[in-house]
Amino acid sequence: MSGERVLVIGGNAAGMTAASRAKRLDPSLNVTVLDAGRYVAYSICGVPYFLAGLVPKLSELQLFTPDRLMNERGIEARTSCRAVEISASRRDVRTVDSITGAPAAFRFDRLLVATGYRPKRPEIEGLDGPDVFTASRLDDAEEMEKKLASGSCSRAVIVGGGYVGLELADALLSRGLEVTLVEASSQVMSALDPDMATSVSQELERGGVRVLTGRRVRRIARTASGGVEAVEVGPGSLRLPADLVFVDVGVEPSVELARSSGIALGASGAIAVDAHLETNLPGIFAAGNCAETRHLVSGAPTSFPLGTVAAKQGRVAGENLAGGRSRFAGAIGTSIVKVLGVMAARTGLNRTEAAAAGYQTVESVIDGRFRASYFDPGAKARVKVLACRSSGRLLGAQIVGSEEGAVSIDVAATAITAGMSVADASQLDLGYAPPAGALWHPLLIALNTLAREL
Amino acid sequence: MSGERVLVIGGNAAGMTAASRAKRLDPSLNVTVLDAGRYVAYSICGVPYFLAGLVPKLSELQLFTPDRLMNERGIEARTSCRAVEISASRRDVRTVDSITGAPAAFRFDRLLVATGYRPKRPEIEGLDGPDVFTASRLDDAEEMEKKLASGSCSRAVIVGGGYVGLELADALLSRGLEVTLVEASSQVMSALDPDMATSVSQELERGGVRVLTGRRVRRIARTASGGVEAVEVGPGSLRLPADLVFVDVGVEPSVELARSSGIALGASGAIAVDAHLETNLPGIFAAGNCAETRHLVSGAPTSFPLGTVAAKQGRVAGENLAGGRSRFAGAIGTSIVKVLGVMAARTGLNRTEAAAAGYQTVESVIDGRFRASYFDPGAKARVKVLACRSSGRLLGAQIVGSEEGAVSIDVAATAITAGMSVADASQLDLGYAPPAGALWHPLLIALNTLAREL
Repeated sequence: MSGERVLVIGGNAAGMTAASRAKRLDPSLNVTVLDAGRYVAYSICGVPYFLAGLVPKLSELQLFTPDRLMNERGIEARTSCRAVEISASRRDVRTVDSITGAPAAFRFDRLLVATGYRPKRPEIEGLDGPDVFTASRLDDAEEMEKKLASGSCSRAVIVGGGYVGLELADALLSRGLEVTLVEASSQVMSALDPDMATSVSQELERGGVRVLTGRRVRRIARTASGGVEAVEVGPGSLRLPADLVFVDVGVEPSVELARSSGIALGASGAIAVDAHLETNLPGIFAAGNCAETRHLVSGAPTSFPLGTVAAKQGRVAGENLAGGRSRFAGAIGTSIVKVLGVMAARTGLNRTEAAAAGYQTVESVIDGRFRASYFDPGAKARVKVLACRSSGRLLGAQIVGSEEGAVSIDVAATAITAGMSVADASQLDLGYAPPAGALWHPLLIALNTLAREL
Repeated sequence: MSGERVLVIGGNAAGMTAASRAKRLDPSLNVTVLDAGRYVAYSICGVPYFLAGLVPKLSELQLFTPDRLMNERGIEARTSCRAVEISASRRDVRTVDSITGAPAAFRFDRLLVATGYRPKRPEIEGLDGPDVFTASRLDDAEEMEKKLASGSCSRAVIVGGGYVGLELADALLSRGLEVTLVEASSQVMSALDPDMATSVSQELERGGVRVLTGRRVRRIARTASGGVEAVEVGPGSLRLPADLVFVDVGVEPSVELARSSGIALGASGAIAVDAHLETNLPGIFAAGNCAETRHLVSGAPTSFPLGTVAAKQGRVAGENLAGGRSRFAGAIGTSIVKVLGVMAARTGLNRTEAAAAGYQTVESVIDGRFRASYFDPGAKARVKVLACRSSGRLLGAQIVGSEEGAVSIDVAATAITAGMSVADASQLDLGYAPPAGALWHPLLIALNTLAREL
């Protein structure tokens, strides 16, 4: 493989992990990463904490600059370099400079497409223009911070109650803004079942966020100078004065480049890959949020907009870019979000997803204590577990409350991945000491409760 | 089953759980719990925190008084009631009152032996007498508190570096005592491999505890009035002045009553039970720390001195006392202990246990970060994972450091129980948000590192 060219399109979780892994396994490789933005190797998950002031400088979210990547890892990173065409036959990628428009071409022996996801843009009048933000790149955070630092911001409207919308609501509230969250469906955080999402809504309202569910943004009214003036919401004629709008109505895999270059997409709309993350074009791999993943519970092809999954796929792709034959098993959508004083976590299938996958489910919900009460009386959380009625297999779990509770989602994720039944999981030998647990782990209590339904 | 008599010997984790479960499933049962001590239904794990002053009153460690047990659960509890003979043929248990010596007898249709464990007493001259303590009953805590509150205590020697010894060292230090820990083997906390136990020793020393390993207590010197004066330690002639001695050199299952009554013991020395926790005598069950448990990794019969395992066995035994046929799968010895500013956790087999079980092992140790560094720079811990060299099966894990790290032991415990290979476990879809995790969970990093050895 000596001296072969490995090219990676997209310099984030999947792309950077793959590039680093490939170079580490085979230092003779020429590894180049192309990214359309100004930065590579950053933590997009950290953006809300930067805006909240917990991360003092944006550069702290950057794991590597291109210089450091070259010096420390021997990887070339080209920023502001937008890939516009992949040619499998020529074995090259055509690019244009995002700033100058200058064209270039990069040859490859093996290629990784790691173009990630992009925020969906709803069809709303007045959406385009200043003061309306999404967050998928570090540049977005920079621009939002500029707006916030200008001092002209006192009212924000968040459109959409997904993870990032909730984290942004939290961040903007901590910056002293008046925050309204508008969600078209009947609940925030659709990743959770409605009964669990209620705790999140209540926490937002307790913190001072106005939460409007079942309301749709009709129009963003702008001032004569083009800035945002108000958000108009239906049904009815509610007008929410606003200086800043943040949109989080979901994401979709960025697949245009792949599709237009003859790379096949899967049923989920993401790039179809085999277990080795190879696409239909030999030597061309895809990983991260643009690539399809097998859901380990339902078996269905899915795409997860999660950095954790992207990084794991990146690792596998990197091994295969270096000539290996590593396999990626799949994922189950484990995620955690902090909203003011609560954390909400989920894994596996929720009620809606389980129904869509054809399962008849049973569920139990309990209020649990994750530490001895004399040690940490705040370590409480609500735990929900779902199982397949016929097989007794554990399908999903949701935990909302304290951090101590939420991180236990990983235990459920592991049991679900292993295909454990409720009966098996209910006897798991979990650790206990008064400062670090409860004699009966609340997850076990929830499972014991659920076992009675089976 | 209506009106049948269920008798339980031992009113703690296993016994109380079993009694409550049986009565709940079949309220017509007459359920009686006999305990030799003055209390039932207490948290012995909370004793160090009571002595440290974190639990203001000893009664807060009591979940139920006999009155409340009767009023709230319809269970009769007899305290100071020592069982001295079980007759399978007469279907009764003979007892004597621990205080008055008065004999009595209790009939049963089904019986549970839940006599727990008792601290081993080493052969040391001067051990018997005042000022030398162990901790297996709430009374022990009461007496120790009396000694501490007397104001005549400034120097303590802990004999043995097991969980309780370490927790006591922490508690006594926080009470302002000068604390020396004497451990006969070459390391504290034999549940951990030596390289992991080092972090615990270092933390003890950092906190001001004098740690003497490889030293054996030869004699406890007493004053003319019988109080403790000093602890003499070998090899050599080290004399440690002391006002209080706490002994924790291990525990053993309390099986005398069972053995003398014709109940068979297993290879581990604990009471032999089948999957339903029934002994060799029909209708007589055993659960908790006096009963044998199958180790889910090695398959060997074992007894775990853990409240978590006892409570789970108690639940199963309770179901069977009420006429059910529930099964107890086994355990893997997951445990956590807090020592000053660190927590140490383990699950599955450590290096010594794996070797004893016939495994050739490979292992990896990494220093991990369990939260984004800008969120919680203190959330670090050292993670060790062990696997079987030939099969790649994950056998054990140890984590020492922050609470955030230590509680992750449950994820490893779940993966080990499921029989996961290192390769499978290394792709587990664990949750991440900067305040609640790391993009690469340190356990996954350790597993990825280990995978390279396989």
